[in-house]
Amino acid sequence: MVETKAPVLIVGGGTIGCGWAAAFAVAGHPTQVFDPAPETAARVDLVWRKALPVLERLGGGCTEAPPPSHIARLDRVERGVAFVQEALPERLELKRDVLAEVERYVPVDAVIASSTSGLSPSDIQDTLVHPERLVIGHPCNPPYLMPVVEICAGAKTGTLAMDRADAFYSGIGKTVLRLRREMPGHLVNRLQAALWREAVHLAAEGVASVDDIEKAVTKGLAARWCVTGPTAIFHLAGGDAGLAKFFDDLGPEVEKWWASLGAPRLDAKTRAALIDGVAQSPDLADAEALASLRDARVPDILNLLSGPEGRNGSISYKREEETC
Amino acid sequence: MVETKAPVLIVGGGTIGCGWAAAFAVAGHPTQVFDPAPETAARVDLVWRKALPVLERLGGGCTEAPPPSHIARLDRVERGVAFVQEALPERLELKRDVLAEVERYVPVDAVIASSTSGLSPSDIQDTLVHPERLVIGHPCNPPYLMPVVEICAGAKTGTLAMDRADAFYSGIGKTVLRLRREMPGHLVNRLQAALWREAVHLAAEGVASVDDIEKAVTKGLAARWCVTGPTAIFHLAGGDAGLAKFFDDLGPEVEKWWASLGAPRLDAKTRAALIDGVAQSPDLADAEALASLRDARVPDILNLLSGPEGRNGSISYKREEETC
Repeated sequence: MVETKAPVLIVGGGTIGCGWAAAFAVAGHPTQVFDPAPETAARVDLVWRKALPVLERLGGGCTEAPPPSHIARLDRVERGVAFVQEALPERLELKRDVLAEVERYVPVDAVIASSTSGLSPSDIQDTLVHPERLVIGHPCNPPYLMPVVEICAGAKTGTLAMDRADAFYSGIGKTVLRLRREMPGHLVNRLQAALWREAVHLAAEGVASVDDIEKAVTKGLAARWCVTGPTAIFHLAGGDAGLAKFFDDLGPEVEKWWASLGAPRLDAKTRAALIDGVAQSPDLADAEALASLRDARVPDILNLLSGPEGRNGSISYKREEETC
Repeated sequence: MVETKAPVLIVGGGTIGCGWAAAFAVAGHPTQVFDPAPETAARVDLVWRKALPVLERLGGGCTEAPPPSHIARLDRVERGVAFVQEALPERLELKRDVLAEVERYVPVDAVIASSTSGLSPSDIQDTLVHPERLVIGHPCNPPYLMPVVEICAGAKTGTLAMDRADAFYSGIGKTVLRLRREMPGHLVNRLQAALWREAVHLAAEGVASVDDIEKAVTKGLAARWCVTGPTAIFHLAGGDAGLAKFFDDLGPEVEKWWASLGAPRLDAKTRAALIDGVAQSPDLADAEALASLRDARVPDILNLLSGPEGRNGSISYKREEETC
């Protein structure tokens, strides 16, 4: 018997919204994408068809589930929506206005999760009739592929909404990271920005080619980071005594490197150095080929990491059979 | 017919030296590890036996090659050494003294590569009889597993030595990153330090658990970084117009995040927060299990990335059959 799952409403039919729609639909949730723009229907369909082979390779979910559908008006929203995923452009007033309208059409206890990476949940929720139901639910891109979702409360968010968002995302196979307080960029984008800042610094200073700086990550650091995160690496480096020994032995050395890290600006000269560096790289210049390679490889890596021994910092993406 | 390869001398029999020894020996180079400590022989053997199954899974090299051997005195060094890999503790005077001795026993044209991550090649070479032959050849740990080697010249290094080091490491299947000038921590450790600094900041500020911060990398960012490096990600985010469009659209946002990144110190409170966070994590507390998982998973990831379509930021680790 097929389990009936709660309807989901996506608000905003851009790339992220359509990506979310594929993730929810394949997990068996009846999913609608609200966006007044009529061309949204085609995008919902396009992203769904792009996501399906990826989701099939991830080996989970139900790729025969009904596809997500587009609605151009909120009075077409299905009854009993339990979860709203907002994925509008990053403009506070727009999000507030549209969510005020959404509140009129969804049950009072539906959780509203915002995909924002830069805006504050306290600001977004402030004009809602039921602000306690608003959380941040920030995906990695694309949402149908990447396992991580960051959740975060605003000043008025209730614990119940956080717990329900956590359970909801976990139920579609996501790894939920729970922020204890608001922080621009949450975890993922801040960590990414920190790494990129030093990469930009090294390129701008001419320490190495953009190509070689990229390879320091793709061929040097990334494979290890798939299993051991930035702190675990140094915990292991400390041997039996772990981090404590690492701090004693190498803490001052690390602090010295930290002090020497760059703080570049994205001025015209730095932008030009990066754009030139990309153009000169045989591996980076062809963006389409690189994107295809990413889409081909990343699901394989995620699958590999979700194998039976894949506890400890690995990815458990496969969903239970029963969702199909 | 088996090709005869040039002898290699490793100077220093610690973990890194023994790891290098396995990498050179499996590629068919007769390899000696010089270290006056008699217990080095056991470590050379231990690391070799640990490396063999990993190298077998990487599917390249010749795991029936003669194992590396230990010598406690430099007058036992084989004739015709073409490449010296120094892997002594990070003390300038020690490196200078031992390399002065090494110069008396190896041919005048042998390249000397230092594994240092923190010392300056200009400082190390300054007291050599033939300073032009000294380069940095810095591995990722463990050197038998990880593909990347960073090379860097000091003030007196000749272009020939850099080219020969490049060719030598490439010949044993490594991906060579060529620094254009000296920089403490080279590329890999600086990038790693930059990411870790923000991870430490987020943990110290209590924004999320150490466990969740680790997962933002292991389950969020790392799989993508295996294919698309820190700059490539934003190049692709810019669509058809690449980085130029990304800078226009999101440059100011990125600069805002950069400005808000943390600059923590490793003081007692921060150390305690990290040590506690590791102890509380079900995935990190058991360091031995985590190290085993890393050793099991990372070769699989590297293999996956070195597949036939694996150009563009992927790893081509497999060596040619002929080395066997």
